Amino acid sequence: MATTERRYVITFGCPDRTGIVAKIASFLADEGGWIVEAAYHTDPDTGWFFTRQEVRADSLPYGVEELRERFIPIAASLDADGDAEGGASGLHWRIDDTGARRRVVLLVSREGHCLYDLLGRVASGELDVDVSAVIGNHDVLADITRAHGIPFHHVPFGREPEDKADSFKRIADIVDAHDPHAIVLARFMQILPSELCEAWAGRALNIHHSFLPSFMGAKPYHRAYQRGVKLIGATCHYVTADLDEGPIVEQDVIRVDHGDAITDLVRKGRDIEKVVLARGLRWHLENRVLVHAGRTVVF
Amino acid sequence: MATTERRYVITFGCPDRTGIVAKIASFLADEGGWIVEAAYHTDPDTGWFFTRQEVRADSLPYGVEELRERFIPIAASLDADGDAEGGASGLHWRIDDTGARRRVVLLVSREGHCLYDLLGRVASGELDVDVSAVIGNHDVLADITRAHGIPFHHVPFGREPEDKADSFKRIADIVDAHDPHAIVLARFMQILPSELCEAWAGRALNIHHSFLPSFMGAKPYHRAYQRGVKLIGATCHYVTADLDEGPIVEQDVIRVDHGDAITDLVRKGRDIEKVVLARGLRWHLENRVLVHAGRTVVF
Amino acid sequence: MATTERRYVITFGCPDRTGIVAKIASFLADEGGWIVEAAYHTDPDTGWFFTRQEVRADSLPYGVEELRERFIPIAASLDADGDAEGGASGLHWRIDDTGARRRVVLLVSREGHCLYDLLGRVASGELDVDVSAVIGNHDVLADITRAHGIPFHHVPFGREPEDKADSFKRIADIVDAHDPHAIVLARFMQILPSELCEAWAGRALNIHHSFLPSFMGAKPYHRAYQRGVKLIGATCHYVTADLDEGPIVEQDVIRVDHGDAITDLVRKGRDIEKVVLARGLRWHLENRVLVHAGRTVVF
Amino acid sequence: MATTERRYVITFGCPDRTGIVAKIASFLADEGGWIVEAAYHTDPDTGWFFTRQEVRADSLPYGVEELRERFIPIAASLDADGDAEGGASGLHWRIDDTGARRRVVLLVSREGHCLYDLLGRVASGELDVDVSAVIGNHDVLADITRAHGIPFHHVPFGREPEDKADSFKRIADIVDAHDPHAIVLARFMQILPSELCEAWAGRALNIHHSFLPSFMGAKPYHRAYQRGVKLIGATCHYVTADLDEGPIVEQDVIRVDHGDAITDLVRKGRDIEKVVLARGLRWHLENRVLVHAGRTVVF
Repeated sequence: MATTERRYVITFGCPDRTGIVAKIASFLADEGGWIVEAAYHTDPDTGWFFTRQEVRADSLPYGVEELRERFIPIAASLDADGDAEGGASGLHWRIDDTGARRRVVLLVSREGHCLYDLLGRVASGELDVDVSAVIGNHDVLADITRAHGIPFHHVPFGREPEDKADSFKRIADIVDAHDPHAIVLARFMQILPSELCEAWAGRALNIHHSFLPSFMGAKPYHRAYQRGVKLIGATCHYVTADLDEGPIVEQDVIRVDHGDAITDLVRKGRDIEKVVLARGLRWHLENRVLVHAGRTVVF
Repeated sequence: MATTERRYVITFGCPDRTGIVAKIASFLADEGGWIVEAAYHTDPDTGWFFTRQEVRADSLPYGVEELRERFIPIAASLDADGDAEGGASGLHWRIDDTGARRRVVLLVSREGHCLYDLLGRVASGELDVDVSAVIGNHDVLADITRAHGIPFHHVPFGREPEDKADSFKRIADIVDAHDPHAIVLARFMQILPSELCEAWAGRALNIHHSFLPSFMGAKPYHRAYQRGVKLIGATCHYVTADLDEGPIVEQDVIRVDHGDAITDLVRKGRDIEKVVLARGLRWHLENRVLVHAGRTVVF
Repeated sequence: MATTERRYVITFGCPDRTGIVAKIASFLADEGGWIVEAAYHTDPDTGWFFTRQEVRADSLPYGVEELRERFIPIAASLDADGDAEGGASGLHWRIDDTGARRRVVLLVSREGHCLYDLLGRVASGELDVDVSAVIGNHDVLADITRAHGIPFHHVPFGREPEDKADSFKRIADIVDAHDPHAIVLARFMQILPSELCEAWAGRALNIHHSFLPSFMGAKPYHRAYQRGVKLIGATCHYVTADLDEGPIVEQDVIRVDHGDAITDLVRKGRDIEKVVLARGLRWHLENRVLVHAGRTVVF
Repeated sequence: MATTERRYVITFGCPDRTGIVAKIASFLADEGGWIVEAAYHTDPDTGWFFTRQEVRADSLPYGVEELRERFIPIAASLDADGDAEGGASGLHWRIDDTGARRRVVLLVSREGHCLYDLLGRVASGELDVDVSAVIGNHDVLADITRAHGIPFHHVPFGREPEDKADSFKRIADIVDAHDPHAIVLARFMQILPSELCEAWAGRALNIHHSFLPSFMGAKPYHRAYQRGVKLIGATCHYVTADLDEGPIVEQDVIRVDHGDAITDLVRKGRDIEKVVLARGLRWHLENRVLVHAGRTVVF
């Protein structure tokens, strides 16, 4: 995405068989398509085949709409049912145009390190995305957000279940108004209701402050400290209705030792959280992450 | 241990207060003791203080026996009850002589990578220890063990509980005959009975092929694969009656991706298992590992 | 520094001999000093001993001035000539009060990732320091700096040697007006003249975008790409008159592969540069870094 | 290679253009070839395209000889001149049969850690290769080699140039008698004469005990210690006439600190050397490493 050269990105999955690569590559070659990046993977467990290909937009004599149209029979012949528009739920294949701007909405609470990090990456041009809005259940991060020229929405959360439902309704309205390519829970400390998990399936990314599946749920650094682990980690995963059990996009760890108090774990862990979330978001926005059978293929 | 210079190693723990370092350091200084390595740690949670000090043997006018004798009142004045002989269970302090050879007994099953690695380290002089014996519930590793000039004992395991108890009785007899400083479960695939866990408390090291507390118990690589983690790990820990819940000595991880089948995880994981076990064993033999409240201090 | 508990930090170096720890620890114990953190190191090559100790301020019946005064004879008796005020050049020992605010001045050019990162850490309270000023030879980072409430000084650089000298004169005036504890070259793309290297010795930190000593000087990512390395790195070091040869405070690396173009190396490298610089700066501000014989001891 | 399923491995490089993937994939599909693994890379600098493909042997109605024969016109049409037999020097493409056993010859001196490690991997079945011979300029590693059932040749080195030439002549004779797929310098402390570098180009792998290009040449750990680096590394590279400047296959690093003496760097470094060499050798034997313009593509 960071390149200025416009490309069409094809992501595709179908049951494995002989000749898939030949069929797709020949289709593209016949149209004059110049493949600048290609990756393939076969999952021996599920017997599925996956690919991601980047084609130079100017190597084709037509636009992305027509490419999608022409690709439909190819996909059908390979039993890749799906949606040329690339709906997240029924995804078997999609074609995206890197010339179209990507939009993201960030959800935050009080902890600012992930927000600061993402805003810095966007401001420095490293992460090529429009941050359409930041929504916080606290307002401590409003000023820095607005200093970056981005709208901040403060949606406080009451303690009663009906208050929470109300707050989530407001959040959903703001998010959906932007129809974002990614909804990022950047240390947002509220659990998404299952209907939002479903509505945003494949688009909502969370950063969990542990090396999952260790320490799912609350206070992972405290529990890591109690267990006496020698490395702590962070996990970027898609949000699903099962808390902290969504498909893992990226993980990393950092070394700690007996001299580190819980506050040190928290501080050291932040550097991992930031990097893991930024990587995961980047890969998601570049259509590098394909989900199948609860696991991710990251091309 | 790898140094040829003979040293006395003091490890010590007591409730924290002012003046502990002064008291111990002054005691050593008064005797002429030359401290060549020293580490200190205070655990704010439990309010305990820990230290490990290496003193040049030739800087003292007497031997380790007398050093222990003279240290008793110092320890007592700091409420470090314990055992001058350094019994593992009641350990609050101990003094060891690096001039005395260390002995280790290895327990193995079929998988040889940890055994090969440890034998290679011993043979090349990197790990300065006598491997008194290797015990296997299978005999596939007998030849390589004997090629290194080390006795191999084959103790097969029946399926009935009483057969197992019998086999463990034989293993205990062999182990205890050597009174080893460490009993290493080098991918030994049998669960130690609780009476052996107790008898060998603080001396039995296990290598578990996951980044604990993830994937405790059986088939961790299979479960790591199913969960789709992006890093796999290994954990060296003291054996306790709670399976895979003993105090962690060392951990490390290695990156995997969607292209790695379970057999790849197994292969990549071995390189981490070997290194983590070798580090943990080395630190244990050098008296660098102090256990307190289920966690380790690794000096 | 991040703790709210006020502490006095003693850093000390002297020729090794028996009884140093005893002397310092006994001095502190006699005054009632409660040591909350202590580290020791003996360099076998140079025969020097180093220590760093943190004492709870409220455990002593007097302030830091008197502690320094009383420590002078101790230091003298151990042949640690030096400067109770802690001058960087003649440093053999110093005592600092964590209750006194630390000040830092940042030097930048066009690349913002290190600046964004440091500002975010300060804003979120992770890095407990006052950023007194940011100085840039370009002004692209002025707005974000001021949005954080920090003065930005634009000091453009001409091409002629006398223009450069002039610009450095202006920079030195701004820096020295703040008497900062650290001057951070946060991807500042001008080479400091040797008189500034000397004036700021022990206080000026640079982040170099390679794993030194590989790729000293200009365009390290390009040269890393040409050489085909499989890891790229970053190095935080003290600035000396010998370009990129100052004492190394911290380094880290990240994996790259044949698929990474130079722009990918630049992007991936940034994540390492940010973290390495932030760690190095933190350790410097906490008086954890002692320099001796061109190498650092990092306690 | 570790799989029991027999495969044909195609490695291929040619100037980039549209339609390469289509042409190769269609050729294979037409023959019924089932691609189980495929990787592609385009080097934007040199404008070259590279691919590696694994095809199930039983999916083709003929053997590897005929596959090579039939592939010649495909390769020619893509301007991939080369050698169907896969000569290392003129390599633009080759096809190998995993059903044919691989042979390797190891060259050693006194340091045994890499040898122990490789023998252990072969013995445990992890590295599926025949070690045809081990050649040492010292004989300290003869016994362990023979315990593994492998011939050991002691070829002592004199100090005079003509003695060295003589010894290398003997080594070349032993090596060439086995026509090995890889000649591994497993901490062999003699510099290969340029005529052997040429004769074994693309087959001779060295492990250098530093993170190249840092510390080329002799005593890298000593120089790393003097420079005060915070990480040490190891590099597996193809041997060329320019010492330590051959194409890099794999590198890794491990953290060290001020407490580590040179002997600690040596010890810690060994764990990295072993793993880096084993990985590099494995990839080489699996035809995963393509060399172009002094850099490697590792599929």
